[in-house]
Amino acid sequence: MTEEQILRILREFKSGALTSDDALHRLRGLPFEDLGFANVDHHRTLRQGFPEVVFGAGKTPEQVARIVETMNRHDHNILVTRSSAEQFARVKELVPAAEFHEVARAIVVSKDTRMLGKGTVMVVSAGTSDMPVAEEAAVTLKVMGNTSDALYDVGIAGIHRLLDRRDRLIKARVVIVVAGMEGALPSVVGGLVATPVIAVPTSVGYGASFGGAAALLGMLNSCASNVAVVNIDNGYGAAVVASLINRQ
Amino acid sequence: MTEEQILRILREFKSGALTSDDALHRLRGLPFEDLGFANVDHHRTLRQGFPEVVFGAGKTPEQVARIVETMNRHDHNILVTRSSAEQFARVKELVPAAEFHEVARAIVVSKDTRMLGKGTVMVVSAGTSDMPVAEEAAVTLKVMGNTSDALYDVGIAGIHRLLDRRDRLIKARVVIVVAGMEGALPSVVGGLVATPVIAVPTSVGYGASFGGAAALLGMLNSCASNVAVVNIDNGYGAAVVASLINRQ
Amino acid sequence: MTEEQILRILREFKSGALTSDDALHRLRGLPFEDLGFANVDHHRTLRQGFPEVVFGAGKTPEQVARIVETMNRHDHNILVTRSSAEQFARVKELVPAAEFHEVARAIVVSKDTRMLGKGTVMVVSAGTSDMPVAEEAAVTLKVMGNTSDALYDVGIAGIHRLLDRRDRLIKARVVIVVAGMEGALPSVVGGLVATPVIAVPTSVGYGASFGGAAALLGMLNSCASNVAVVNIDNGYGAAVVASLINRQ
Amino acid sequence: MTEEQILRILREFKSGALTSDDALHRLRGLPFEDLGFANVDHHRTLRQGFPEVVFGAGKTPEQVARIVETMNRHDHNILVTRSSAEQFARVKELVPAAEFHEVARAIVVSKDTRMLGKGTVMVVSAGTSDMPVAEEAAVTLKVMGNTSDALYDVGIAGIHRLLDRRDRLIKARVVIVVAGMEGALPSVVGGLVATPVIAVPTSVGYGASFGGAAALLGMLNSCASNVAVVNIDNGYGAAVVASLINRQ
Amino acid sequence: MTEEQILRILREFKSGALTSDDALHRLRGLPFEDLGFANVDHHRTLRQGFPEVVFGAGKTPEQVARIVETMNRHDHNILVTRSSAEQFARVKELVPAAEFHEVARAIVVSKDTRMLGKGTVMVVSAGTSDMPVAEEAAVTLKVMGNTSDALYDVGIAGIHRLLDRRDRLIKARVVIVVAGMEGALPSVVGGLVATPVIAVPTSVGYGASFGGAAALLGMLNSCASNVAVVNIDNGYGAAVVASLINRQ
Amino acid sequence: MTEEQILRILREFKSGALTSDDALHRLRGLPFEDLGFANVDHHRTLRQGFPEVVFGAGKTPEQVARIVETMNRHDHNILVTRSSAEQFARVKELVPAAEFHEVARAIVVSKDTRMLGKGTVMVVSAGTSDMPVAEEAAVTLKVMGNTSDALYDVGIAGIHRLLDRRDRLIKARVVIVVAGMEGALPSVVGGLVATPVIAVPTSVGYGASFGGAAALLGMLNSCASNVAVVNIDNGYGAAVVASLINRQ
Amino acid sequence: MTEEQILRILREFKSGALTSDDALHRLRGLPFEDLGFANVDHHRTLRQGFPEVVFGAGKTPEQVARIVETMNRHDHNILVTRSSAEQFARVKELVPAAEFHEVARAIVVSKDTRMLGKGTVMVVSAGTSDMPVAEEAAVTLKVMGNTSDALYDVGIAGIHRLLDRRDRLIKARVVIVVAGMEGALPSVVGGLVATPVIAVPTSVGYGASFGGAAALLGMLNSCASNVAVVNIDNGYGAAVVASLINRQ
Amino acid sequence: MTEEQILRILREFKSGALTSDDALHRLRGLPFEDLGFANVDHHRTLRQGFPEVVFGAGKTPEQVARIVETMNRHDHNILVTRSSAEQFARVKELVPAAEFHEVARAIVVSKDTRMLGKGTVMVVSAGTSDMPVAEEAAVTLKVMGNTSDALYDVGIAGIHRLLDRRDRLIKARVVIVVAGMEGALPSVVGGLVATPVIAVPTSVGYGASFGGAAALLGMLNSCASNVAVVNIDNGYGAAVVASLINRQ
Repeated sequence: MTEEQILRILREFKSGALTSDDALHRLRGLPFEDLGFANVDHHRTLRQGFPEVVFGAGKTPEQVARIVETMNRHDHNILVTRSSAEQFARVKELVPAAEFHEVARAIVVSKDTRMLGKGTVMVVSAGTSDMPVAEEAAVTLKVMGNTSDALYDVGIAGIHRLLDRRDRLIKARVVIVVAGMEGALPSVVGGLVATPVIAVPTSVGYGASFGGAAALLGMLNSCASNVAVVNIDNGYGAAVVASLINRQ
Repeated sequence: MTEEQILRILREFKSGALTSDDALHRLRGLPFEDLGFANVDHHRTLRQGFPEVVFGAGKTPEQVARIVETMNRHDHNILVTRSSAEQFARVKELVPAAEFHEVARAIVVSKDTRMLGKGTVMVVSAGTSDMPVAEEAAVTLKVMGNTSDALYDVGIAGIHRLLDRRDRLIKARVVIVVAGMEGALPSVVGGLVATPVIAVPTSVGYGASFGGAAALLGMLNSCASNVAVVNIDNGYGAAVVASLINRQ
Repeated sequence: MTEEQILRILREFKSGALTSDDALHRLRGLPFEDLGFANVDHHRTLRQGFPEVVFGAGKTPEQVARIVETMNRHDHNILVTRSSAEQFARVKELVPAAEFHEVARAIVVSKDTRMLGKGTVMVVSAGTSDMPVAEEAAVTLKVMGNTSDALYDVGIAGIHRLLDRRDRLIKARVVIVVAGMEGALPSVVGGLVATPVIAVPTSVGYGASFGGAAALLGMLNSCASNVAVVNIDNGYGAAVVASLINRQ
Repeated sequence: MTEEQILRILREFKSGALTSDDALHRLRGLPFEDLGFANVDHHRTLRQGFPEVVFGAGKTPEQVARIVETMNRHDHNILVTRSSAEQFARVKELVPAAEFHEVARAIVVSKDTRMLGKGTVMVVSAGTSDMPVAEEAAVTLKVMGNTSDALYDVGIAGIHRLLDRRDRLIKARVVIVVAGMEGALPSVVGGLVATPVIAVPTSVGYGASFGGAAALLGMLNSCASNVAVVNIDNGYGAAVVASLINRQ
Repeated sequence: MTEEQILRILREFKSGALTSDDALHRLRGLPFEDLGFANVDHHRTLRQGFPEVVFGAGKTPEQVARIVETMNRHDHNILVTRSSAEQFARVKELVPAAEFHEVARAIVVSKDTRMLGKGTVMVVSAGTSDMPVAEEAAVTLKVMGNTSDALYDVGIAGIHRLLDRRDRLIKARVVIVVAGMEGALPSVVGGLVATPVIAVPTSVGYGASFGGAAALLGMLNSCASNVAVVNIDNGYGAAVVASLINRQ
Repeated sequence: MTEEQILRILREFKSGALTSDDALHRLRGLPFEDLGFANVDHHRTLRQGFPEVVFGAGKTPEQVARIVETMNRHDHNILVTRSSAEQFARVKELVPAAEFHEVARAIVVSKDTRMLGKGTVMVVSAGTSDMPVAEEAAVTLKVMGNTSDALYDVGIAGIHRLLDRRDRLIKARVVIVVAGMEGALPSVVGGLVATPVIAVPTSVGYGASFGGAAALLGMLNSCASNVAVVNIDNGYGAAVVASLINRQ
Repeated sequence: MTEEQILRILREFKSGALTSDDALHRLRGLPFEDLGFANVDHHRTLRQGFPEVVFGAGKTPEQVARIVETMNRHDHNILVTRSSAEQFARVKELVPAAEFHEVARAIVVSKDTRMLGKGTVMVVSAGTSDMPVAEEAAVTLKVMGNTSDALYDVGIAGIHRLLDRRDRLIKARVVIVVAGMEGALPSVVGGLVATPVIAVPTSVGYGASFGGAAALLGMLNSCASNVAVVNIDNGYGAAVVASLINRQ
Repeated sequence: MTEEQILRILREFKSGALTSDDALHRLRGLPFEDLGFANVDHHRTLRQGFPEVVFGAGKTPEQVARIVETMNRHDHNILVTRSSAEQFARVKELVPAAEFHEVARAIVVSKDTRMLGKGTVMVVSAGTSDMPVAEEAAVTLKVMGNTSDALYDVGIAGIHRLLDRRDRLIKARVVIVVAGMEGALPSVVGGLVATPVIAVPTSVGYGASFGGAAALLGMLNSCASNVAVVNIDNGYGAAVVASLINRQ
């Protein structure tokens, strides 16, 4: 369509229907989207197996369901993060193929099952309370076409639980580490692997954890130099970054 | 050596020089390093072209020089970050091959010039004041065997400066984005590319920038989901993560 | 009335009913309001089409309704911000002309429909979750006699959505930019226009957004120098400032 | 030049030197700057009497002088903020027309003396220690073509000093209020005028002023709804916003 | 009683019933309370008309009622702060003389109605939302035997409302100023009077008020030097300090 | 079992069933747990009378009950902290021996009643609101085999209440001090005893207590040098540290 | 003078030299200062023995000296706080009667030695490092006509040092308590006296004292209800409040 | 002396030289120190081998030297923490037996070399930059009569360095862990030992370490329950607590 627009201007100019001034004016005025600038990225993104994503928190079941219904017209996977059972119930009525991952609080409509990642993404979490965030990462990884592995409940106060599974850790192309409280697990993991570590602080904790700020600061100050950090509880974002690395 | 130790115990046990109790005791007591556990990682890391790194800040010229001299016995590249001209002067006396990157505040001894990254890492920075951090990243990338490109001074208040170079951005396998003040550049870049973006907040700013905290928070809250963040002014860490991605 | 008071004193002094001491005493003792000092501003403000405003949050429906009923005796527009459906129901009983703007959480009694602004005020928002704040601004703009335009959901991770509508942006005399998370949109908008930008951080976000603090800091540290900021979620305040500019 | 580029493509296409595919390709590939998009803004900005601005802090005298020398080839006013006597001495050698405003810490090269503002901008400051920031605003206002007035040392603990000059306050089209410590002056001023108030917190204070954070928070929470805020110590930014309002 | 204890030891020692060692031992071992040390303060305090005070928040109605019932055996006034209607209902059953001040959230049992303060304590508040805190101060003042006056809703954005009542302000021996948001009212009041000002920040506000922290910081940084501050929402504490001053 | 594994490898190697390469490979590959590394600690810990501990907050009654049921197969004491009456009801169905400490919010299954501490641990608390935390400490102390004593409601504004009981304080081998608000009690206690003081800040307070941060900072800055601090409201952790000291 | 102005207008009006309109206009237009409003306070303040005060920090010796020289024309005491030996040297040249209190960092010119306080103000400080702040309070108390007493180095970790001097404490009409670190001393003192306690947090401490914030928070959360707080290191402000109380 | 005082009163009372009223008065009035209350603690403390301690920071060499000289009259060890070479030079002149521990920044006068601790205290530190704090702990431990061991530079990114020395760790009766940056080392150590762990956060780090706050928060949120924390950089305090534990 964009191309057609430009071609039409060119043709009209050639035919004399447009003066050079008019053609100049119209070409300069073309909205960027019509120039294909941004859309190209967008299209390319979706072609590559990126899901369409909805942030469920704060939306009514009806709102979420309508958005998913609209997205459902395309062939992309659909992911609703931070969703509730109520939201899922309504989505399910409109889009029967939808599935609910309860721990991950995620609704998924799966259409594109191609494996796009080249290797395995490992998801490590410190405690059982971190599981909703870890599972959000795991579900996102799957929706984006990755094979993933998981090591849960391997907090650093019992370091042996992690060291025992070093082999599985080392096999991963990227590692996502999810931890609340002091947020030290990414540093330990970072010292054990030679791959990028994406750290996700969680709001798990109380008192001086200040809603995850302690874990966040711990991860940003990691003495392991192969660690990068995303927002508190942002399992989804960590999985997106990890997916992009895994496709390289 | 480690393997020899284990083999020796096995042989002595077989020969009867060690009882099963003694063998058991010695095997359990072997320091982990001797088991090769950590060293393997370490060796592998160095074999893969990782530099040996010194954090220069707070060390005397003599201390830095002695450390570099010791490291110089091996074949790895050497990188001193946060270093000063005074430190370099002393290092140069002991290790004549050392070079100083003034803007990056980095001393480099280059021995291993293999290209280990598979593509280009782009370093984008918002303002000229962010250059020391951006250059620290650039020097680290080179020391770790990457081809890099750079787009400096493309802050978001003049968004066209960035959009003009979109083609170069898109070609990179990973993008490092360095920005102080409001730290919004990674979000804009993240929206333009389909690759991982490693964001580095800088302490550039004044007043309510609170030493880089504003930029850090901005990056952690990025509306672009392909952004991960390292510590304030940590150009080195961003380059390590980017290098690891670029080798995948 | 004030003037009458002063004139009465003057007359009584002239007539000898007041000694100079008494006149002096009474003139010095006149409450400032009677001197017309503050009231003049107040009156002038109201004459200029400023609404009477109630902050609804924390008030009972009965309290809000009684206040609106009292205000309703004058000819000014009435605006209740941060109001609820319950408050509106009770207000409606006492003041049938009242209308409820649900998304904006605003009750409006419209009496004065003069256009007082000289041009258009543009309201730009980053995401759909920012709409309550953006709509509070839009409703306030209308109540204060402005023509407004709106660009919603043009966050910087999809910068093209904003660039596409640059023409509309440039036509505005003032731009209000509403954004949560990293709060970077005002910087981008600020770089595209040559008019004042009033930035409104919102509490939209989670984790390290710290209730809107991240967005607030981002806006205060904007690299665009034509940006000024109001409190988190303060769509009303932004609209007041923008209205005053638009009347200049 | 940009226009010439587009015209040349159009002509070559008309002449048949370019196929429609080639023309399409080249038109889509034109860098945005060449499309005139951003430059138009830029040019328009400069044509309207905006100065070229350098942030002096952290730059060497030589760096500042070279930048000013380069800018001096154009006809715009030049403003160096946060500059030092040392920087000025070197600038003066290369650009003899430069002047130094010591209190404002600003170097100015004045070429364009047109009055661009329609009225007066008032600068109010709370204490004598706030003068560097207030003067930075005043100098910027002048460089941008405004008439300004000033009320210094009218802090709220002696509210009469401010009330005495209410007439001058009311005459201004915009008011900039500069205050440290508790930052309450903008609220009082905001209650006295019906014009926009741009508030500048300063780092003046000690102890629990936390480098200006107390004043900043005070201003953001102003009970006067016609107050918008810029960064701590940002007299320049306040003056830019005020200038834009004054040109409306 | 304490005195009797000491006297008894002395007598027993004199009579020979106690050796000097025993007397020494028992005198050194006397609990401090028995020495009259702390109790004297305590008794003196209560004799001076101090109420017995219960912090109601977080206690069950039963707990509050039992405590009040116990206190009711003495002749002191009783004050329950931060109490609820539920707590009052149960207290009323056990102590029929109890009264509830709904706005102040205070239960009072009044027995001692002596006027202990030498003059008037003025309670000034900025907005209607600050009334619970202001009324807590007013009720406490009454319970502690003070005459009080009140100026409510005289925030600084309408400074004339305060200036109008300057005469009443000046007559007070102490002034309590209650304000949320930017917390600037104590500074203005402090500049108008020559008496001590006790400032109470409130949690009234939203966004960057951070639960009253903005008001607290504003008051601590007051440019008026006759201002001292108590905790956020602590109307009770301000009234205690003011009462003590008023008794001097 | 672990030892058996190693012995089996040794035997098979001796017998020739394993080559030295195979034995080497298997010995190096043994998971650390199998090497007895971590388990030894674990076993030793449990043998020493450490309870098995569950953090109840955020778990469903069913989850808590299942975990306790599983733990109940061993001979260790079981402790559920931050538990609710609902959780207890379900636990009681599955494990009838369970008891609920309501104030401490703790479920206990007691099996091992050996006294493991060598002396008394004193628990001191500042106010009645601190009791849940103090009782959590007391219950934990008991579960871990300590004799404990308690001094509650001895806040520093009535310092005599503490001084009166100095003798009991001095007899303890360790003192746990629980306090909210200004958190000063540990400093006073620290000055009275020559034993380690474990300080527990609580979230008791309002306004500028910021959820216990004020008490935490007070304790960390204690002028008494024998004070160490645990997380806000962490009565359990304080008791663990105190128990370990008491066993020394 | 003010009164004369009003009388003149009245007379001219009576004589017919002014119309009623003119008289009205001039009476309304009288600057507040001319109405005697603020000046009365000001004059009264100075008549009551308030010193003229200069905040020395950040001023040059010349600036301080010139200000003191100007003030010296009146009969009030002069106080320069936060001053330096360099400032004093220059002041001494212009005003030979000036004296320097080195520990208090205060320059005093003493002219009015009347005793204005009715009793004694006690200054208590926790450690020797708090002495500059305590001495600033002591010097201010003297300059404002108070008798003061001092108890230094009586920190709460050695509570007996304070208890020993309880008699002197109890005799004071007001107590100023100066403390850094955990800032708990005012709570203890507050529990011992029945008079107002003005607490001054100091920036003494390191690490988690965060420049005095820990002490400030401790004092604001005091469990003693007779404590009010001033800014960090603000010995001057505490003494002003105490002086006003002492004059009651 | 105290006892003598009491005995004298008793004798004078018995002899009739004192009436019972006089004896009562004098006994009640005895300063607490004279009652032996606090001094007993003090004496007992010193008898037990506690050093006399001076905080050197902010004191002049002369002040430190004079204090040490005075202390030198007793037989206790003397410790000056946070001292400088300049301070030491002057101390050495007055007290030739003084020694300087440069890395620990500590001056020691050693007189009492009894071993008072029952076992070994282990000092673990994460990085070489943490050595001044670790050494301050080590020197304090020695001055207080402990045998200590040290494991330096065993940060968690190279966890094997720590695991290798597990045997030495386990042998200690108490472990002090010193770490900056993310402060995670105490959690790992806490998981490896069954003894109390005293954690010392350090200000080592940059950017988001916020002067040690990140490490502090990490340690307070430790997932290991045998960890208690002291102030940032407070190696001295950690050693005092550890010494007291080691004497149990």
